[in-house]
Amino acid sequence: MTINEAPPTVSGAPALPSHGRLRPLGLSEVTLRPGFWQRRQEVNRSATLAHIEHWLERAGWLGNLEAAPQDRRGREFSDSEIYKLLEAMAWELGRSPDPELEERYRAIVRRVAAVQQPDGYLNTNFGRPGQQPRYSDLEWGHELYCYGHLIQAAVARARTFGTDDLVEVAIRAADHVCDVFGPDGIASVCGHPEIEPALVELYRVTGDRRYLEQARLFVERRGRQTLADIEFGRAYFQDDMPVRAASVLRGHAVRATYLAAGAVDVAIETGDGELLNAVTRQWRNTVARRTYLTGGMGSRHQDEAFGEDFVLPPDRAYSETCAGIGSVMLSWRLLLAHGDPRYADLIERTLFNVIATAPSDDGTRFFYTNTLHQRVLGTEPPAGTLVPRAASTLRAPWFGVSCCPTNLARTFASLAGYLATSDDDGLQLHQYAAAEIRTSLPDGREIGLEIDTDYPVSGRISVRITETPDTPWTLTLRIPQWAGNATLDGMAVSPGQARLRRRFTAGETVVLDLAVRPRLTAADPRIDSVRGCVAVERGPVVYCVESVDLPPHVPVDTLRLDASVPPADGGGGVVASCRITSPVDQEWPYLAPGPEASVKSAEVVLRPYHDWAGRGPSTMRVWLPAY
Amino acid sequence: MTINEAPPTVSGAPALPSHGRLRPLGLSEVTLRPGFWQRRQEVNRSATLAHIEHWLERAGWLGNLEAAPQDRRGREFSDSEIYKLLEAMAWELGRSPDPELEERYRAIVRRVAAVQQPDGYLNTNFGRPGQQPRYSDLEWGHELYCYGHLIQAAVARARTFGTDDLVEVAIRAADHVCDVFGPDGIASVCGHPEIEPALVELYRVTGDRRYLEQARLFVERRGRQTLADIEFGRAYFQDDMPVRAASVLRGHAVRATYLAAGAVDVAIETGDGELLNAVTRQWRNTVARRTYLTGGMGSRHQDEAFGEDFVLPPDRAYSETCAGIGSVMLSWRLLLAHGDPRYADLIERTLFNVIATAPSDDGTRFFYTNTLHQRVLGTEPPAGTLVPRAASTLRAPWFGVSCCPTNLARTFASLAGYLATSDDDGLQLHQYAAAEIRTSLPDGREIGLEIDTDYPVSGRISVRITETPDTPWTLTLRIPQWAGNATLDGMAVSPGQARLRRRFTAGETVVLDLAVRPRLTAADPRIDSVRGCVAVERGPVVYCVESVDLPPHVPVDTLRLDASVPPADGGGGVVASCRITSPVDQEWPYLAPGPEASVKSAEVVLRPYHDWAGRGPSTMRVWLPAY
Repeated sequence: MTINEAPPTVSGAPALPSHGRLRPLGLSEVTLRPGFWQRRQEVNRSATLAHIEHWLERAGWLGNLEAAPQDRRGREFSDSEIYKLLEAMAWELGRSPDPELEERYRAIVRRVAAVQQPDGYLNTNFGRPGQQPRYSDLEWGHELYCYGHLIQAAVARARTFGTDDLVEVAIRAADHVCDVFGPDGIASVCGHPEIEPALVELYRVTGDRRYLEQARLFVERRGRQTLADIEFGRAYFQDDMPVRAASVLRGHAVRATYLAAGAVDVAIETGDGELLNAVTRQWRNTVARRTYLTGGMGSRHQDEAFGEDFVLPPDRAYSETCAGIGSVMLSWRLLLAHGDPRYADLIERTLFNVIATAPSDDGTRFFYTNTLHQRVLGTEPPAGTLVPRAASTLRAPWFGVSCCPTNLARTFASLAGYLATSDDDGLQLHQYAAAEIRTSLPDGREIGLEIDTDYPVSGRISVRITETPDTPWTLTLRIPQWAGNATLDGMAVSPGQARLRRRFTAGETVVLDLAVRPRLTAADPRIDSVRGCVAVERGPVVYCVESVDLPPHVPVDTLRLDASVPPADGGGGVVASCRITSPVDQEWPYLAPGPEASVKSAEVVLRPYHDWAGRGPSTMRVWLPAY
Repeated sequence: MTINEAPPTVSGAPALPSHGRLRPLGLSEVTLRPGFWQRRQEVNRSATLAHIEHWLERAGWLGNLEAAPQDRRGREFSDSEIYKLLEAMAWELGRSPDPELEERYRAIVRRVAAVQQPDGYLNTNFGRPGQQPRYSDLEWGHELYCYGHLIQAAVARARTFGTDDLVEVAIRAADHVCDVFGPDGIASVCGHPEIEPALVELYRVTGDRRYLEQARLFVERRGRQTLADIEFGRAYFQDDMPVRAASVLRGHAVRATYLAAGAVDVAIETGDGELLNAVTRQWRNTVARRTYLTGGMGSRHQDEAFGEDFVLPPDRAYSETCAGIGSVMLSWRLLLAHGDPRYADLIERTLFNVIATAPSDDGTRFFYTNTLHQRVLGTEPPAGTLVPRAASTLRAPWFGVSCCPTNLARTFASLAGYLATSDDDGLQLHQYAAAEIRTSLPDGREIGLEIDTDYPVSGRISVRITETPDTPWTLTLRIPQWAGNATLDGMAVSPGQARLRRRFTAGETVVLDLAVRPRLTAADPRIDSVRGCVAVERGPVVYCVESVDLPPHVPVDTLRLDASVPPADGGGGVVASCRITSPVDQEWPYLAPGPEASVKSAEVVLRPYHDWAGRGPSTMRVWLPAY
C-alpha cells in the first residue's frame, strides 16, 4: 500500500484532479476568518459533530457495528452516516488538530475496522446470518454507496494526516469492490451512485489505477439497464441511458449529481473529452431549466427527483439539502476542469441559499428539504425526537433518513477548499469570505493574501497582498453575473472575471466592490408556477417574506409587490412596496376574470431566505405576485 | 337471511338512503337514450367488461382464487378488482339481461364463493400457509376494503335481481366482519375506507342493523390513531383526527372521499346531524379550496393525496380517476340528503371532465391520473402491456394498481341512477342526457318523461311529459352555476333550480335552454400555479389546447391568450385569439423583469379536455397565460 505524500501546495483539498484548467487549494492553504462562513464552520465543529455522534448512538446506527444481525437498526444506508461523520472529523482535524476530537475519531474507526470481513466486505445490513446475502439488492441495498462514503472519509484523512487504520480499511474495501465488480465480476452498478467519485479520489491518493478503472467501469455500465425497473422508472437511478448520451440531469437529484461528479472525475483522469462534454452539457441544461432560484435542485417529493424542464413549483419544492451539496461537488469539478466562472456563480448561489439555509443557527436542527413557499405554519418537532419524514416543515434534530446533517458537516468542515484555486500564473478567487491564503505556484513562487470583507452584507472585498514574488503574476477575481455595477479599485468591471496581472507589492490592497443592493428578479415565462411573480435578491442572497414580519392576520399569500418601486435596504432587511389584498372566499374558486380586491398599501420587510424559520413557525414566500 | 323486496320505485339505485330530502331513482326507472353518456355506457358493456375480465385472468388476479398461496399474484388489494367487475356486471344485468353475460357473472361468483372460509373470511392474500396472518397489517392489507367492494357488488345484485350466491357470500363476509371488528373485537379500522358505505348499503338491503352499527363503529374509530404512523403521516388514511372534527378532506383522495361517503350514510341512517354537518362542511371547503377546474381531486403524486389549500398545480395534477368517482359518490349522497343543486353541479363537472376523460373511445385504455398540463409527448404503452406506474402519460390498457378501470366500469353501468330524483311532490332532473324516465311518486301517481337533447353540444333540453297524473306536481330542473343566460320555455331562469308546479298534460314539452357557449374562466388568485392564466369552458365541459392542433414546432407552452376577445365556436371546437411567443433560452432562467418576446398572432382551436390524447401523443394545456 502506498500513500502519496501530498505536496504542500495541495494539502487537504476536497477534490484533487491530476490536471485541469485550475488547481484546488487545500485546507492548509486557505483559512476562514471571522465572518459569515467561519461562524457556520465553528458551529459545525463545536456543536454539529457532537450532535451527530449523539444521534448515531441514540438511533443505534453506531451500535449496529457491535449489534447482532437481528438487532440491526435504521435504514439500509445508515452505515454511510458514520462514514460522513468520520469524513467531517477528518477535515476538522486537518484544519485544526484537537486531541479530544482525534480520540473520538479513532474510537469510531476502531469500531468500524472491527466489522470488516477478511475479504474486505464491510456492511452491517447484509451477508450475516438472518440477513439478505451480499449484493442481492443492488437497486436499494446501498452497499457500494456506503463504501463510497467510507472511501471519501479515508481520502479526507489521507489528504490531511496520511495513512491510518481508516485509510487501510477503505483500501481493503476498495480492493474487495474491484475483485467483486471488476471486468469479470458482477456486471452491474449500485442503485445510488457515490462509489464512482470515491474510487477516483482514492486513485488520486494512492496512485493505484485499478480504482480508476473500476470507477470508469461503473460509469460506463450505468444506463445499460443492469438494474431492475422500479415504480419510479430506471431514470430514478440514472440507469435509463448511458451517461455520455444524456443531455440533462434527471431522476433522483442526489444520485444524479453524485454520478455526474464521478463521471467528471473519470473523464479528467482518463482524458475522455466526450464524457466531460456530456456532463458539461447536462450541467448547462440543468441550470437553465431545472434549478430553483436558490440553486436548489429536485422539484418532486414523490421520488426526490428532478421534474421536467421548467417544472419548479415553489410550494412543493423538494430542493434536498444533499442535492445542493451534490450540485456543489459537480460544479466545483467542472470549474477546475474548465475554469469558467459560471460554475462558481452556481456554487455561490447554492452555498448561500441551500447549504446556509439547511442548519439552524446552533447547528443542531436541519432542513432536509428546502421549500420556497411555506403555506401553513410548520410544527416544531418535539425536542429530541426523530422525524420520520423527509419533508420537515421546520428544522428537525434528526431524521429516519438522515443523510443531510452528516453531509452538511463534511461540507462545512471542508468549505475553505472551495474558495480559491491556482494555475501556473497566479491565483483565482471564486468565493468571497474573510480568509487568509498562503500558497506556492508550481514554479515555487509564494503568494499570501488576506481577504477582509463582511460579504454578503456589503459587496466590498479588500484583498491585501501579504506575500508576493517580485515577478508579475495574475490575481483573478470572479465578478458574479448579478453584479452589473462592480468596480475593482474604482474601475468598472463586467460580470465574469477580472484579471490583474502585474508585479504586486507586499502590503498593497486591491478593493473589489460588487455593489450589493436589493434587486427584483423575474423568471423565465416557461416556469409556470411563478408566472407574474418577482423575487427579491441582494447580492448572492435570495430574500423572502415571513409572516412573523407582517402585521397580525396578514397571510403572506395576500401580498402583491409593486415592481415599479425598487426595493431598498432598511428595517433590518430589505423593504419592498406592497399591497395587501383581501381574497374573497368563493363556493367555487373558478370564476369569470376580474380585478383583485385590493385593500391597502404596506412597506414589507424581507429577510434572507437562509435565515427563515429561525424565529419559530412562520409562513413564507420567496416569489411574490407583482403588479 | 332476509332480502327486502325492493319496491319498484327504487329498483336498482346505486345508493339508497332510507330518508333524506330527495329519493334516488333506480336503473329500472331511468334509461339512457343515444347520446353522450349512452355511447359510453354501451362501450363499457360491449368492450370494457370483457377487457377487464381478460386482464384479470391474464394478470392472474382471477387465478388467485384457485392458486396455491405461494403462487398468488398482484397487489394485496387485487381481489377488489374482481368484485368491482362483478358489481359492474350486476348493474348491467339489471339494466338489460343477457344470458351470456349472466353466465360469465355466475362463473366468477362460483370461483369467489369457493374461496370463502367457513367463518366467512375471504381474501386470497392473507391467512393461508406461507401468508401473513389475517388482519396482521390493517394499515396496508386492504382486507376490509376488499370486503367493501364484495358487499357493494352484492348490493348491486340484490337491488337489480334479488338474492343469489354472491349476496349470500357477502352477507357471510359482513357477519364475519361484525364478529371480528365488533364492539368487543379488534378495535381498529382498515387503512383504506370502503367497508363503511358498503355495510350501510347492506343494512339498507337486508334491514340488519348490525351492519349499520358496525359501519358506525368504523366511522367513529377513524381518527383515533388506531393505525400505525406511516411515512406519509396518519392523515393519509384519515386517522389523524375524528371524522366529525375535520373541516376539510385531506390525505389520500380516494380514501378521503370513500370515508366521507360512508360517514354520510351512517349519519343519515342514525340521524346524526352533527356528523352530517361535519362532512357537509368538509365538502364545502374541499370544493372551494382543493378541487381542480375539472372537478378532479388530489394534487400530490407522492401519496395520491389532497394538497394544502389552493395547491393545485396543473402539471403535476394527480386527479386520480377513482378520486373523481369517490367525489361523485360523496356529492350524490349529500345531494340526496340536502337537495342543494351545488352537489349536482360538481357531479356534472366531474362526470364530463374526469369520468369521461379517463377511458379511451373504445373503452380499453384508461387514464389513472388526469393531468391538466402535459409538457412532453407521452409514450404509447405497447399494446397488451401492463403499465407499472400510476402516472401514465397516455391511456394504458391495464396497471399494476388497476383500480380505475373497474371503478369506471361500475360507474358507467349505474350512471342512469345519478340523473334524477323524486320527492313527495314531483321529480328533479339533476343531470341532462337523452333519457326516458318512468316512476311513481310515493302516493302512487305515475310520471313519465322523455328527455331529448344533444347536451353538452348544445344546451337545449326538451322534456316531453309522456305520463302524468291529472293533479299538479312539480318538475324541478337544475340550472348549472355557469348558465347565466338560461331560459325555460323562453323565460329567463337563474342558476340554481327552476321549479314548474302545475297540472301537466301528457304530450306537452318543456324546453330548457342553458345557452351553452364558450367562456373564459379565471382562478382564485390564491391558486398560485395558474396565476395570470385563463381557461376556456363551454357549458359543463373544460377545453384544452393540444399540440396536434397547432402548427408544427409550436409548443403549447408558447401560447398566450387574448382575454379581451371572447372565444367562439368554430374549427371543430372553440377558437381563441392567441399570440405565439418565442421564449429565449438563457444560461440562467432568472433575470430582471422585462417584456416577453412576442412573435405572431394566431387563431387557436381548443377541444374538449375529455377527448385529449385521443389522437396520439400530444402536449396539452388547460390553463393558458392571458394578456
